[in-house]
Amino acid sequence: MADKKKVEQITSMDEDFARWYTDVVKKAELMDYSSVKGCMIFLPAGYALWENIQNLLDRRFKETGVENVYMPMFIPESLLQKEKDHVEGFAPEVAWVTEGGGEKLEERMCVRPTSETLFCDLYKDIVHSYRDLPKVFNQWCSVVRWEKTTRPFLRSREFLWQEGHTVHETAEEAEARTLQMLNVYADFLREDLAIPTIKGQKTEKERFAGAVSTYTIEAMMHDGKALQSGTSHNFGDGFAKAYGIEYTGRDNSQHNPFQTSWGLSTRLIGALIMVHGDNDGLVLPPRIAPTQVVIIPIQQQKDGVLDMCRKVAKEKLEGLRVKIDDTERSPGFKFAEQEMRGFPVRIEIGPRDIENGECVVARRDTGEKMTVKLDELTACVPKLLDNIQKDMYERAKEHLENSIYDAVDYEEFKKLIDEKPGFVRAMWCGEQECEDMIKADTTATSRCMPFENNSPISDKCVCCGKPAKKLVIWGKAY
Amino acid sequence: MADKKKVEQITSMDEDFARWYTDVVKKAELMDYSSVKGCMIFLPAGYALWENIQNLLDRRFKETGVENVYMPMFIPESLLQKEKDHVEGFAPEVAWVTEGGGEKLEERMCVRPTSETLFCDLYKDIVHSYRDLPKVFNQWCSVVRWEKTTRPFLRSREFLWQEGHTVHETAEEAEARTLQMLNVYADFLREDLAIPTIKGQKTEKERFAGAVSTYTIEAMMHDGKALQSGTSHNFGDGFAKAYGIEYTGRDNSQHNPFQTSWGLSTRLIGALIMVHGDNDGLVLPPRIAPTQVVIIPIQQQKDGVLDMCRKVAKEKLEGLRVKIDDTERSPGFKFAEQEMRGFPVRIEIGPRDIENGECVVARRDTGEKMTVKLDELTACVPKLLDNIQKDMYERAKEHLENSIYDAVDYEEFKKLIDEKPGFVRAMWCGEQECEDMIKADTTATSRCMPFENNSPISDKCVCCGKPAKKLVIWGKAY
Repeated sequence: MADKKKVEQITSMDEDFARWYTDVVKKAELMDYSSVKGCMIFLPAGYALWENIQNLLDRRFKETGVENVYMPMFIPESLLQKEKDHVEGFAPEVAWVTEGGGEKLEERMCVRPTSETLFCDLYKDIVHSYRDLPKVFNQWCSVVRWEKTTRPFLRSREFLWQEGHTVHETAEEAEARTLQMLNVYADFLREDLAIPTIKGQKTEKERFAGAVSTYTIEAMMHDGKALQSGTSHNFGDGFAKAYGIEYTGRDNSQHNPFQTSWGLSTRLIGALIMVHGDNDGLVLPPRIAPTQVVIIPIQQQKDGVLDMCRKVAKEKLEGLRVKIDDTERSPGFKFAEQEMRGFPVRIEIGPRDIENGECVVARRDTGEKMTVKLDELTACVPKLLDNIQKDMYERAKEHLENSIYDAVDYEEFKKLIDEKPGFVRAMWCGEQECEDMIKADTTATSRCMPFENNSPISDKCVCCGKPAKKLVIWGKAY
Repeated sequence: MADKKKVEQITSMDEDFARWYTDVVKKAELMDYSSVKGCMIFLPAGYALWENIQNLLDRRFKETGVENVYMPMFIPESLLQKEKDHVEGFAPEVAWVTEGGGEKLEERMCVRPTSETLFCDLYKDIVHSYRDLPKVFNQWCSVVRWEKTTRPFLRSREFLWQEGHTVHETAEEAEARTLQMLNVYADFLREDLAIPTIKGQKTEKERFAGAVSTYTIEAMMHDGKALQSGTSHNFGDGFAKAYGIEYTGRDNSQHNPFQTSWGLSTRLIGALIMVHGDNDGLVLPPRIAPTQVVIIPIQQQKDGVLDMCRKVAKEKLEGLRVKIDDTERSPGFKFAEQEMRGFPVRIEIGPRDIENGECVVARRDTGEKMTVKLDELTACVPKLLDNIQKDMYERAKEHLENSIYDAVDYEEFKKLIDEKPGFVRAMWCGEQECEDMIKADTTATSRCMPFENNSPISDKCVCCGKPAKKLVIWGKAY
């Protein structure tokens, strides 16, 4: 019974999803709280997820010509203030450095909440001719936003992310890059994280401060809530004008270039947990799992058992991320821990298995167990990992598709939002008043105007009844 | 002539080494200055060097059991102040955040200058029993130190680094880890960066604030100055006592554990430049070079030239980091740029070469050019890269060994420091007064008490003439 202790301490998802979440992040040792209010500590198991996200996503970036740079973490107040909408959007939630090296600073500087301003300042210096374009830069860094309420991975005063910032000769090129990066994000979530998303455009209210258009991928968590998982912004030439970026065009006259930015953060770790996790803990898709296979010896003190585990790891599972749990704890405890930490595949090897030339292989996602000949592991395990990845995506997709409802009148809309965990599709007149009213009445927000499956389902706004302009996906969000 | 423009703008090393350095970092587009005073921008070519350093060093770390984490970037003032020596060492040069989210903070927080305090605070929470030990954590992050004078890569108000922080059951284990990581650094510099170093211990004056002992690897730049390239600190149980870290030992009673920390930063990029660079620009060791081979087409508008370049890159040079420069600029301009940027190997392919089934291969480090059959490139180029790596190390080692002088009396010492670029070996009584006087008289500092070649060369302190305790390596330093 004590073996199950780790697991039994988790709150059930159905009982209290929020507590289940905080139980999992703590018990799976993904994070710890810190004495710095509102900031979290990424422990090895949590940071390893971010490292894998970085590696896989960075490779996709570089295939599209992205180059990485690193900009200062401070932004002088005067620089932040050059773009009006942008400063209004961010100034209220920044942290200010006012003293340095024992002296009060002449001008205070904020710790970057995002770096549009610094990139503009750089582009102003290095972009002079159409020959200098495009620049497709990205940085991996931490940013600070002074949030009032925080939750591990989802909302934290400091978080890790990447921010891409590009500058282009034409509006068309900028729009194409904005959508290209949105697709990179969606492909990455689908293929590597087994998370399906809805791609679409944000309404003006939900747009990034200073952008002409913001595109988003929205994922659905197990509890039916939305998590905005990546955004891509087209700035038009607004920032270029505000920051004085100019280039000599092919026509030999001066122009402002067009810009984009796009970001994805450690909140994605929250999505991984809430899309795939279950009442036994984390369930990690194989492609992102820091440990893909854990080998647990049974009666490990018996001659040959540990040796066989090591032999299997070395000779049968080459190229996979394998760990042998040879600690001095009972197999039951190790099983519970493997489940809590979400390692996709568990292999059990004991004396009797060795005699029979076989082992037990268990899937974390379904709990299914099978007996596999040791000689067949090399062929079987990679295929099993592929199947797990595929099945996890299919289950998440089914959940997403089965949790989207249509509403044509406001009563129906409110009832669905209230009673059915998931998203609601409904028509919208295009006025922010209706978005505000829906939020006030239901706490749901417009997630996006989807690119696909967006044919009108009525000709009236679900809220005010006036002529409808767009189909919008609504949902409660993290 | 215009082709050579990029190169001609560099100041010669011998004329003005400092200006040569800043010319190279700008012309090779490694960095740019920013409007944030004292902070620099890492441009793609500079950041790519840091990415390669990270990848290669992180792999070495993980082989020794290091796990990566990420801690908050802020340190509350009260936490910083718990270890007396530490706060005295760092408080004068930190940046303070005093406002956040529109309000004055109750307690100001500094942006981390280093994270011993935060790691101690974490270890206090997660270390309870000898079974929890050791913890061998590391983080890759940026840190801030409010320097008065700054130089690209070498000294900057914000820089990137890794900081390892470990906690152990015994003093012996901590000492072993401190030395192990020093060796990891030295091996990495020797094998990957082709930089020889001198390993040794710092004197008390040069020790890290709060450490029991500090070990260092010291590299010699082309101008004979020292660059401290990595340090590893043994803290004993001082921090554990100050921060209240305790564990139940095997004897069932309470103990303070023993700690270490070790760090290496982006100033290493400065070392790469100043050890290997020449009057034509950067010279990069192949193992760290983001581009190892650049193919430059000659008469690229002619049929088949660009196709052959692409074929060579794809079929003959697989697995290497290859770039084809097919921009619309003259070959001469491209050659000069390749030299400035330090790409180790250049391959020139023109119509006549193709006719003869050959190409020209040029080494960046020696300037040597050879004609190679296209069919032999696959065998030849990887071997050539290995030779360049080896030769670059040998040349740097020769320079280091030939620039170390012995001094037994103070007049000789001062004359050597003044006239001979390089290090001086001399005996020392162990008193800080002598270190201070030497610094005041010559600007040279004690670099380290070397682990090797440290037999006494006299029995008197080179400065005061009192009985000598240790052989010390002295030098002017960056």
